[in-house]
Amino acid sequence: MKRIDNFKSIVDKYDIIFFDAFGVIKTYQGLVPGIEKTFEYLQQQGKEYYIVTNDASRSPVQLADAYHRYGLTAITSDRIISSGMLTKEYLDLQVQDGIVAYLGTPESQHYIDSSGLHTLPVSEINSTNIDKVNALIFLDDEGFDWQTELNKAVNILRRRTIPVIVANTDRAYPLSVNEVSIAIGGIASMIESVVGKQFIRFGKPDSQMFMFAFDLIREYRPISKKQIVMVGDTLQTDILGGNKFGLDTVLVLTGNTLSKDADTRITATGIMPTYICDSAVVDAGEFSF
Amino acid sequence: MKRIDNFKSIVDKYDIIFFDAFGVIKTYQGLVPGIEKTFEYLQQQGKEYYIVTNDASRSPVQLADAYHRYGLTAITSDRIISSGMLTKEYLDLQVQDGIVAYLGTPESQHYIDSSGLHTLPVSEINSTNIDKVNALIFLDDEGFDWQTELNKAVNILRRRTIPVIVANTDRAYPLSVNEVSIAIGGIASMIESVVGKQFIRFGKPDSQMFMFAFDLIREYRPISKKQIVMVGDTLQTDILGGNKFGLDTVLVLTGNTLSKDADTRITATGIMPTYICDSAVVDAGEFSF
Amino acid sequence: MKRIDNFKSIVDKYDIIFFDAFGVIKTYQGLVPGIEKTFEYLQQQGKEYYIVTNDASRSPVQLADAYHRYGLTAITSDRIISSGMLTKEYLDLQVQDGIVAYLGTPESQHYIDSSGLHTLPVSEINSTNIDKVNALIFLDDEGFDWQTELNKAVNILRRRTIPVIVANTDRAYPLSVNEVSIAIGGIASMIESVVGKQFIRFGKPDSQMFMFAFDLIREYRPISKKQIVMVGDTLQTDILGGNKFGLDTVLVLTGNTLSKDADTRITATGIMPTYICDSAVVDAGEFSF
Amino acid sequence: MKRIDNFKSIVDKYDIIFFDAFGVIKTYQGLVPGIEKTFEYLQQQGKEYYIVTNDASRSPVQLADAYHRYGLTAITSDRIISSGMLTKEYLDLQVQDGIVAYLGTPESQHYIDSSGLHTLPVSEINSTNIDKVNALIFLDDEGFDWQTELNKAVNILRRRTIPVIVANTDRAYPLSVNEVSIAIGGIASMIESVVGKQFIRFGKPDSQMFMFAFDLIREYRPISKKQIVMVGDTLQTDILGGNKFGLDTVLVLTGNTLSKDADTRITATGIMPTYICDSAVVDAGEFSF
Repeated sequence: MKRIDNFKSIVDKYDIIFFDAFGVIKTYQGLVPGIEKTFEYLQQQGKEYYIVTNDASRSPVQLADAYHRYGLTAITSDRIISSGMLTKEYLDLQVQDGIVAYLGTPESQHYIDSSGLHTLPVSEINSTNIDKVNALIFLDDEGFDWQTELNKAVNILRRRTIPVIVANTDRAYPLSVNEVSIAIGGIASMIESVVGKQFIRFGKPDSQMFMFAFDLIREYRPISKKQIVMVGDTLQTDILGGNKFGLDTVLVLTGNTLSKDADTRITATGIMPTYICDSAVVDAGEFSF
Repeated sequence: MKRIDNFKSIVDKYDIIFFDAFGVIKTYQGLVPGIEKTFEYLQQQGKEYYIVTNDASRSPVQLADAYHRYGLTAITSDRIISSGMLTKEYLDLQVQDGIVAYLGTPESQHYIDSSGLHTLPVSEINSTNIDKVNALIFLDDEGFDWQTELNKAVNILRRRTIPVIVANTDRAYPLSVNEVSIAIGGIASMIESVVGKQFIRFGKPDSQMFMFAFDLIREYRPISKKQIVMVGDTLQTDILGGNKFGLDTVLVLTGNTLSKDADTRITATGIMPTYICDSAVVDAGEFSF
Repeated sequence: MKRIDNFKSIVDKYDIIFFDAFGVIKTYQGLVPGIEKTFEYLQQQGKEYYIVTNDASRSPVQLADAYHRYGLTAITSDRIISSGMLTKEYLDLQVQDGIVAYLGTPESQHYIDSSGLHTLPVSEINSTNIDKVNALIFLDDEGFDWQTELNKAVNILRRRTIPVIVANTDRAYPLSVNEVSIAIGGIASMIESVVGKQFIRFGKPDSQMFMFAFDLIREYRPISKKQIVMVGDTLQTDILGGNKFGLDTVLVLTGNTLSKDADTRITATGIMPTYICDSAVVDAGEFSF
Repeated sequence: MKRIDNFKSIVDKYDIIFFDAFGVIKTYQGLVPGIEKTFEYLQQQGKEYYIVTNDASRSPVQLADAYHRYGLTAITSDRIISSGMLTKEYLDLQVQDGIVAYLGTPESQHYIDSSGLHTLPVSEINSTNIDKVNALIFLDDEGFDWQTELNKAVNILRRRTIPVIVANTDRAYPLSVNEVSIAIGGIASMIESVVGKQFIRFGKPDSQMFMFAFDLIREYRPISKKQIVMVGDTLQTDILGGNKFGLDTVLVLTGNTLSKDADTRITATGIMPTYICDSAVVDAGEFSF
């Protein structure tokens, strides 16, 4: 593990960079200051990059739009790999017909639509259609009344033996410097323990996220895991997951892991990034246009 | 472990009977048919009895009133020992001043009122009073908006290092033959894992419930644990808890544990009641008035 | 929570002091320097004191002997309350006949001997006597071959549906400043997850330890929980358990919790002692003989 | 989910068959009777097949030899994909130099040897070489003294912040119809909870096992997940893992899941195979040579 002063020297060693989104590229206050220079440099150098995110609340197109509104046009939808995309792939492969019930916003629903399946919010499941429900998806913590719909979800799962997908494994996400919000991953764990059944989780640190990204690239050119580095702010998801998949990793200190806590947390958890770097910003002074 | 045909022969061996409430005396449909005869027999024989319940949603007086409305007048409030009473004792002993924030109905609040403390629902905590919050209590799953108030509870606990009491350890409770509802114990476990702090749980199988009942009796007469039998429908709470405290136990099959599943579940969990009995009903034919 | 400079000022507020043993009175190097003065002061002031320990490896008499060899004669066997004593009480109340199999040293065995029961190490269980095994006890990590006997214990529990007691809930214990040893509590958790059954645990933070001590005192005089303070070095056992039982608590910094980590750990776990004090030593200069 | 009488009709629908080893092809008594006919049929039909196993105790060559001794020559070492192979890949990618300490037999060691690394049993780690230990691997439950070496492993991990690999996630494995043995996965979980660090697990149900097999095939020909079926006897590993990776699955009843329990367990866990079949045997009468 090495402390590296400038992110540029890390980028220079790899061909492909995977970035976590929240805490690395953006925070609750907007973009990480200077991050647009990183993407300028990546494009100038002909490096590939992907955003690998546990965010299943919106489609890649909607997620890219949010970056564009901030002026970061380098992140296009085809650069975004989300846990929601794995959910969609699962439904395509494993659920042939009937209803897919979900908890989340209408926006989170659209991009999991799969041919032959009818996607409905849990609130629209009732005695006339419950026996057609063939999968239940936890997509987002917004968009439904928790008390009513979580109790309904429990009772759907007591009646139907069906796969349950958790499209975002995070337990909480930051709202501001002092506040967090319970994420759908935390809610899903509660329902899992109440019904006593085993859910399927997509999202870092699970390797399937990294494999999905890796496969997308391999479709058009051969690569080795040694050419890729994963950049993240969270030891338990970005760093553990990237490392387990065989990638080198960079812990940045602009998000979940504060500079003063980094060493303590690495020792306590045993999760060791290849590099630690203050941020994923390539300083303007570090390269010439 | 013995299968016993009539509950009367068990009662005859002990001086004091502890009953779980739900699944033993009442179900979602009302009283267990014939259960009033059990209490007639207990009174006739001069046996003592207590209801030992994880229900913290209402005070003993309110819980007793519900039995009276069903015609079961033998259960008076002084016969009821609830996990809410342990919460009250904890506040009396360990929290001197300030605000006790709670999640639950207004009825669940009143009986935890403790002198010197100001009891407020989480919904009334804000930036002007948050620094006076000295305890947070999970009382009941009803009476508050889950999304808003659970997120608020998380952020109170990120700001304040205070004891958190879970007054009901159950994860779910039955609403009808087919439906259950998430209980406050399940909700509290989710919040505990999101904030990463350790909560204090009162309620079976924790011994403190049994100790509280045991102490109440010992205040006016000497008893031994050998004179008491615990009657319950749930292996993980009533039977495990009673057994660990050193009491003999009876598993009845009118609630959570179905007759066809009893042996399998006992073998699977390793939790072994002293007796198994179809119900806690002492049949009219079994005793003469 | 208050930082207190001298332990004497805490002692002066209570009538009865409960002490954890390891990390409070002794360490792997012997007695905590000066601790004998604390017991002189307690005796001079007519305060009562008890050692409340998760050590089930030896009987109270043997534990007291160890203090006497160090010159601390104030700790007599009747002052020691161990998790092994709860195990003995459980066997007396709940296991009538047959064999009690145990993992531990021969010394740990003797004091759980209960009338009518035959106590045997797991190594002596075989096809001729396995069907008479009516309880299995995890007493100590020493005294048996781990690979052979732990595998045997698993297979006993697959054949017999019997209560399993874990007489020490600790997962590890310190051997020297840098080394720890896996404790029987950690081993028992592994076996529990392999066999999928629920074990009975005695030992702090479980309230039954505190209740046992409380009851011993009440046998000869009335007391209130407000008169007792629990002194310990471990947040998750001594402080959480004492607090939950309703006792005031003192965290001392001579054992598991280092001075530099105390505040961080209290905030991280949410377990808050009533007082923090460098050690349980009452300084000689603080009282006159 | 469909109950299928003859395994042949399942084989006919897919191009590639993944088999679990234990409980599907062999049991503690030797080969599953008739299983050689399945491999004859697969070869006759030009179907591909792989053994996907959590066994890291021996190399693929040694595992294949064991089948050959039973007369099953169809299983060659290049058909075997084990969790040990993922461990080897991890070391190649992520550990550059120093010592890899392991728990297991000498046979389990050889095939994780990686260039530039020195592989040593935990028993040979001491004060002169501990600071060069750069990874710790849990390979097998045999080949070391549990008490001495597990305590040593704990203290290595307290001193060194290094990746820890668990090469077999199973908690137990069957020895005979009535007996099981604790597996290295169960032991590793105990050490993980004692040291409080996060270990890396390879082995089903983790997707990385399936991905590894999938990638091996794709190196020489294009395939889709829809062409593959996973055959296993264990819901929590084979079926859950295969299903999550997007494969169709067959639960066979020759191993961990007994015919009488299959429906109950599927409902209880919510893990649903695509098919249930008595065994993986293609009956001789079902095809002509």
